[in-house]
Amino acid sequence: MTNTQHAWIINHYATGELDGSELQWVEQAVPELAEGEVLIKTLLLTLDPSNRLWLSEEEDYLPQLQLGDVMRGLVIGRVEQSRHTGFSPGDYLFAMLGWQEYAVVNGDDLIPAAGAVRFRPHPDLPLDAYVSALGLTGWTAYVGVKLIGRVRPGDKVLVSGAAGSTGLLACQIAKAAGATVIGIAGGREKCDLLINELKLDGCIDYKATVDLSGAMAEAFPAGIDVFFDNVGGPMLDAALENMAIGGRLVISGSVSQYQSFGDKDKLYGVKNTFMLASKRLRMEGFLILDYLDQLAEILPEMEQWCLQGSLQYRNTRVDGLENAQEALPRLFSGRHTGKLVVKVA
Amino acid sequence: MTNTQHAWIINHYATGELDGSELQWVEQAVPELAEGEVLIKTLLLTLDPSNRLWLSEEEDYLPQLQLGDVMRGLVIGRVEQSRHTGFSPGDYLFAMLGWQEYAVVNGDDLIPAAGAVRFRPHPDLPLDAYVSALGLTGWTAYVGVKLIGRVRPGDKVLVSGAAGSTGLLACQIAKAAGATVIGIAGGREKCDLLINELKLDGCIDYKATVDLSGAMAEAFPAGIDVFFDNVGGPMLDAALENMAIGGRLVISGSVSQYQSFGDKDKLYGVKNTFMLASKRLRMEGFLILDYLDQLAEILPEMEQWCLQGSLQYRNTRVDGLENAQEALPRLFSGRHTGKLVVKVA
Repeated sequence: MTNTQHAWIINHYATGELDGSELQWVEQAVPELAEGEVLIKTLLLTLDPSNRLWLSEEEDYLPQLQLGDVMRGLVIGRVEQSRHTGFSPGDYLFAMLGWQEYAVVNGDDLIPAAGAVRFRPHPDLPLDAYVSALGLTGWTAYVGVKLIGRVRPGDKVLVSGAAGSTGLLACQIAKAAGATVIGIAGGREKCDLLINELKLDGCIDYKATVDLSGAMAEAFPAGIDVFFDNVGGPMLDAALENMAIGGRLVISGSVSQYQSFGDKDKLYGVKNTFMLASKRLRMEGFLILDYLDQLAEILPEMEQWCLQGSLQYRNTRVDGLENAQEALPRLFSGRHTGKLVVKVA
Repeated sequence: MTNTQHAWIINHYATGELDGSELQWVEQAVPELAEGEVLIKTLLLTLDPSNRLWLSEEEDYLPQLQLGDVMRGLVIGRVEQSRHTGFSPGDYLFAMLGWQEYAVVNGDDLIPAAGAVRFRPHPDLPLDAYVSALGLTGWTAYVGVKLIGRVRPGDKVLVSGAAGSTGLLACQIAKAAGATVIGIAGGREKCDLLINELKLDGCIDYKATVDLSGAMAEAFPAGIDVFFDNVGGPMLDAALENMAIGGRLVISGSVSQYQSFGDKDKLYGVKNTFMLASKRLRMEGFLILDYLDQLAEILPEMEQWCLQGSLQYRNTRVDGLENAQEALPRLFSGRHTGKLVVKVA
């Protein structure tokens, strides 16, 4: 390794559309390790919608980045040197680190509560599987389907946002768990993908559907056992109307409502919550960070599904950290499939 | 016993306000027991809002009563004669029977799935405790607080409709479980009752409150751990805003919405369901009928609370089955406290 490295630092905060000058490409010294610290080499960096938030001055659940700070990012890295008894060279980590080639961190901070998880990549799987199907998105889908939704063989499952990154994986995990799975997606092309490539049992094209509740009733004559919801709003309302007795609604996201946050008048009001009692429903949200300490039990099953082909994923790969800033706007233009990942080393 | 008995039969269906001629007081023969049948003597009959529904031609989860049928009611009865191997004279039952002095039923139908539960009254408690604190209302409160809400010592609990029949009991059971409990009720008088007599830790008088969400924020600076909701609508929405991370919302009823059923435009839309994910909330409805088979485990704890005075209840008693029809409208005029119960024998 060298004593200097490249990094992207905050040049100015983003407002409105990204203009590609928010970050600055710099060369920085890699500090010497102090006692308790670990040197991590960045192998893969994922580009996520939350990056846009971190680039701005908007409030977030993480501390505000200052001008001159290294841009924050979720990476897969490998320990190169360690002065912490808990880490050895060769250890692999998921961690919230930065847009830089190397990171020096106190090993005590590399804990699940801070979003850091150690793992051992399966030798027959490519490393980039661990940023999508076997990464945060995949774990979210797994926890939602298996631990919150408790999908059982024979269950009738509906997934909204089924062609989205979490939705695609939730559909496949529900299938792998033995359920009948129907997705909701926008457009013929997405529905074709879900039915032909992912072998779902059906797809509701919401763009071609006037009466969403009626379409659900037709697709689920005996009711929905589990609704995995990425969308919220009117879709959640229509699903409530069509749940089976004892059904479960997994609230993974409410993407239809995010643009209305902070403006209560614009938020959609869900009218059918009273059905929770009459149909004895459970509706539950979760945050994947609460489950990182269970990952060691979850990953092996998911790796097997990947090896068998029952858990497929697609990443769009960008080569070279120097191309990361240019690639970021692709997240918001739809010009990518699956997870957008930067190969750093 | 005699071979004839008195009963109230359906004379005509109710429309609008009850006029007191819907039922007719008749004398009927008590049939001889066939093999497998049981003769039950009605001791107590409860008058409930659902009676109004059964008197009408409106749709219900139970079969429509026909003109000339004995009026349906929830009773506590005692087995007098039995030609069923599962029942003996002296057995006590909660059961959905009728407004009559005796009922002859097939013992096979006296099962929890049909709303019938056998019990042994505690010798130190009055029988009418078993129609309120120790009856369907009390079990509903217990299941909601303990099994669905999983209230633990130190939890901060909010109960809507706190001065209602279920709410009163839910507040006391949450206190008995070691929680800090604040009720929502309408009017100073109800709040005084909750604080002074039931020793709640606070009461929000919604009739004197403009900003319900703000009042909740003030009463729960660290957030609500468990919301026991009898009301739904705007109260549920305000509670969602004030839940603590990992909170639980027990949907026991949605009384604010019942009058809007069948008219979707009038239903209140809950805007904060998206918070289920960000706060990792669980919102769950239940029907007490699903828990009747667990009653043998639940009742002893509740009986102890009654004996210790930590579970208080009030009934308004009407003496004599012949006065039942006249008493029924009191349910809807507020001219009673607690459960309205008719002493039949």
